[in-house]
Amino acid sequence: MVKENEVAGRLEWRVNMPNGSSRILAPESRETCSRLQSLVMGIVLNIKAFLDKAWNLAVNEPKKVVHCLKVGLALSLVSVFYYMRPLYDGVGGNAMWAVMTVVVVFEYTVGSTLYKCVNRAIGTCLAGSLGIGVHWVASQAGDKFEPVILQVSVFLLAAAATFSRFIPTIKARFDYGAMIFILTFSLVSVSGYRVDKLVELAHERVSTIAIGASICIFITMILCPVWAGTELHHLISNNLEKLADSLEGYAAENFSVDGSKNVHEKDSSKRLQGYKCVLNSKAAEESMANFARWEPAHGKFNFRHPWKQYLKIGASMRSCAYCIETLHGSINSNTETPEFLKKPLNDVCMRLGTTSSKVLKEMSSMIKTMKKSTKLDILVDEMNSSVEGLQNALKIFPSYQHIPTPDPGTEEAPNGKEEPSLKPTALSLMEIVQMATLTSLLVEIASRIEGIVEEVKELATQAEFRDESSMKSKQTQTKINGNDGNEHEVTMKTLQKV
Amino acid sequence: MVKENEVAGRLEWRVNMPNGSSRILAPESRETCSRLQSLVMGIVLNIKAFLDKAWNLAVNEPKKVVHCLKVGLALSLVSVFYYMRPLYDGVGGNAMWAVMTVVVVFEYTVGSTLYKCVNRAIGTCLAGSLGIGVHWVASQAGDKFEPVILQVSVFLLAAAATFSRFIPTIKARFDYGAMIFILTFSLVSVSGYRVDKLVELAHERVSTIAIGASICIFITMILCPVWAGTELHHLISNNLEKLADSLEGYAAENFSVDGSKNVHEKDSSKRLQGYKCVLNSKAAEESMANFARWEPAHGKFNFRHPWKQYLKIGASMRSCAYCIETLHGSINSNTETPEFLKKPLNDVCMRLGTTSSKVLKEMSSMIKTMKKSTKLDILVDEMNSSVEGLQNALKIFPSYQHIPTPDPGTEEAPNGKEEPSLKPTALSLMEIVQMATLTSLLVEIASRIEGIVEEVKELATQAEFRDESSMKSKQTQTKINGNDGNEHEVTMKTLQKV
Repeated sequence: MVKENEVAGRLEWRVNMPNGSSRILAPESRETCSRLQSLVMGIVLNIKAFLDKAWNLAVNEPKKVVHCLKVGLALSLVSVFYYMRPLYDGVGGNAMWAVMTVVVVFEYTVGSTLYKCVNRAIGTCLAGSLGIGVHWVASQAGDKFEPVILQVSVFLLAAAATFSRFIPTIKARFDYGAMIFILTFSLVSVSGYRVDKLVELAHERVSTIAIGASICIFITMILCPVWAGTELHHLISNNLEKLADSLEGYAAENFSVDGSKNVHEKDSSKRLQGYKCVLNSKAAEESMANFARWEPAHGKFNFRHPWKQYLKIGASMRSCAYCIETLHGSINSNTETPEFLKKPLNDVCMRLGTTSSKVLKEMSSMIKTMKKSTKLDILVDEMNSSVEGLQNALKIFPSYQHIPTPDPGTEEAPNGKEEPSLKPTALSLMEIVQMATLTSLLVEIASRIEGIVEEVKELATQAEFRDESSMKSKQTQTKINGNDGNEHEVTMKTLQKV
Repeated sequence: MVKENEVAGRLEWRVNMPNGSSRILAPESRETCSRLQSLVMGIVLNIKAFLDKAWNLAVNEPKKVVHCLKVGLALSLVSVFYYMRPLYDGVGGNAMWAVMTVVVVFEYTVGSTLYKCVNRAIGTCLAGSLGIGVHWVASQAGDKFEPVILQVSVFLLAAAATFSRFIPTIKARFDYGAMIFILTFSLVSVSGYRVDKLVELAHERVSTIAIGASICIFITMILCPVWAGTELHHLISNNLEKLADSLEGYAAENFSVDGSKNVHEKDSSKRLQGYKCVLNSKAAEESMANFARWEPAHGKFNFRHPWKQYLKIGASMRSCAYCIETLHGSINSNTETPEFLKKPLNDVCMRLGTTSSKVLKEMSSMIKTMKKSTKLDILVDEMNSSVEGLQNALKIFPSYQHIPTPDPGTEEAPNGKEEPSLKPTALSLMEIVQMATLTSLLVEIASRIEGIVEEVKELATQAEFRDESSMKSKQTQTKINGNDGNEHEVTMKTLQKV
């Protein structure tokens, strides 16, 4: 409708009216128009950006899309209760609680769904029976005291249950249950004032909740289940890999000869930043370990798999990541180490970086495959000998430099081939500081990696990782059948190392 | 009833029967008895430990106890709806939703309560109107298609809303709202199949939710409100203080003369560990900043207080804490620095540690009082000059040691007063490494503190901190009136520094 005409060098806006005539727009209208246009454009762009983000999320994590479909399915299933009269009448018109249970209880991982189901069941039953008890006591006390007793009991129990949610042990396991307890107790003891058929009502509520919960558990465990335990397991092993990459990338960038530097250049910045994931994964690890506890045996994990040990590994990994972070910080320091010191130390530093990162990678693959590694001890020994090598290099290395000085008594040779005499000149501490810091951080990182090794070995013992003796034969098998990409890759890597 | 008798060196158990006779217990019964006893004792001890823990929590954080009482009060208030017939009839017997709203929505901080109230209101209204719309469309489509349309719409909308909860921006602000949307939409569109009075029902539900929400908001904001913003503000300023203490304690422990070491000894370990709080506070900071956004103006904070800037300060504090953690790790390194190097460097390191910690403390008090500090720049300059001092010391210091060597040509003087001649002996790098690492970590920490200074200054600009010019007069006033402990302490410290 709006047209832009250029008439004799002057820009004007025309609006075509429905009757065929056209009208020139006044400047204010034009301004409003363009403002509206830019506003609409802004909104459209925003929505586009949002949709792009959502699309990327969906493409990168298809599991989450599957979860959404599972929620939809569970709700559709539970709503069947409304459409089929026998079912609806069977639960006395209380199908609402089944829908509510599904919406509230259905979570991303199996563990968190089970946690909520169990908590909801315990909380409802406990509060329901207590509520009926209190209601019975109150009804015996006569009309005058009945509301008082009910009010006081609601006040006290709600306050106590709320307080219990602040206690860490309760919060970790029964936070949701405490909330459901308060909810049910208030509803039962208060609504009991009007409704006489309390027990029948309670029975109906419990059965609808059971229906909702069992639909959730069924769907979450049968259709592409996402186990909190498995996620935690992968998170820890991936984080070990990331730490290794970070360390290896750092070593390659700082200590290697130019050749290998180029190989790593393209993905180096991403690899170098890997340690940041480790720094920030504490909350995720804790919640996963918390939910994993509720999960039954699945895949390679028993019911009593030592999930807490993963948290210990996570903690020692973070302590190592702090050191790596500091190491990265010290790259940007502007002091320069003299070349004559750098070259020989670079080799030992590179070796330490590489052996440390190998230890980390070996642990990662050990966790991934859940097999005890005989190579781990060898790699740790290698790392320790690299540490010793570095320390020896430092011990042997004198902190002075041979600087050529012209001997005043002799004439300079005309062809310049005669070597000038060398005089040892002490370095100032400043020139050594950066190299010293790098080396001692590398040594510190190696000692923290040993801490991780301890924890991983403890996990291997507690979770009864299989011995590696039967590995060789299985490797070949995996290589042939290998339809699991990850496992295949790990095997390939292990073979390459050998 | 159970007695322990020692008869002729033999121990036997007797049970006194009600009729006065007594019977010797057989060994199995005794075992059962003692097992039962130890079981009961174990349970009692466990309960006692649990109650002790709860009591300590209550004593240390009385605010949390107050919160519990507030929840009890809100529930008692809302249950009045059940007891007063006019009110009960006014909401058509739907008082249940008010109770449920109170239980689900009442949170510890004002911000999180508001977040849940607003989310619940938006989610309910949006889903309610959409549900009624879909229900109307379905009812037009005839009996055959009605359930299909309803089912499909529930499936699609539930899946879409669940997916939206995975998108970070939605998750941060509307996670709860999305859940309520799914809940309400399912309930409305499905239960609409049976109930004709949908609009009336929706109206009643909205009004009961409004009643519950307003009771929550009223109580949470009037009775000892806990503002998420204020908590975040205190957390950041306390964490700065803890970092300062940690650094100061570290410097005192490692670089000071013995006198000042003793002064700090008793609480040193606690102070040294302060930085650990900073390492682990990311999740708490983020959730508080998230909730603070929902809070109205309160105390010294406007509605649009730059809460996000606190997260930036937190991030740069953590980056500094990583370095301090590495510093602490390197104490336990077993290499020793030669004394002749240690003494002169100790002074400059001590100075750097003290000035750095002063900068942190000044920032902490600046945030606490919300006043721009003129002293901050001076302190930063001091810190930078300490860094320069340290670097100069390192530059000047030669890396060799004068070792006394007996001159073979001269006889030793009999009184031993004649000084032996000194010969410069180069140190190996190993001997310097620890000191070099310490100094370069201290320098790195100082540079990261400058990062914090930048962010704090940005906060001062964004939040329009008051100028310090009017501080002097107010200091005297606070000193006289000072009933606020914290403020008083800060002022005293500031005065001491001057």
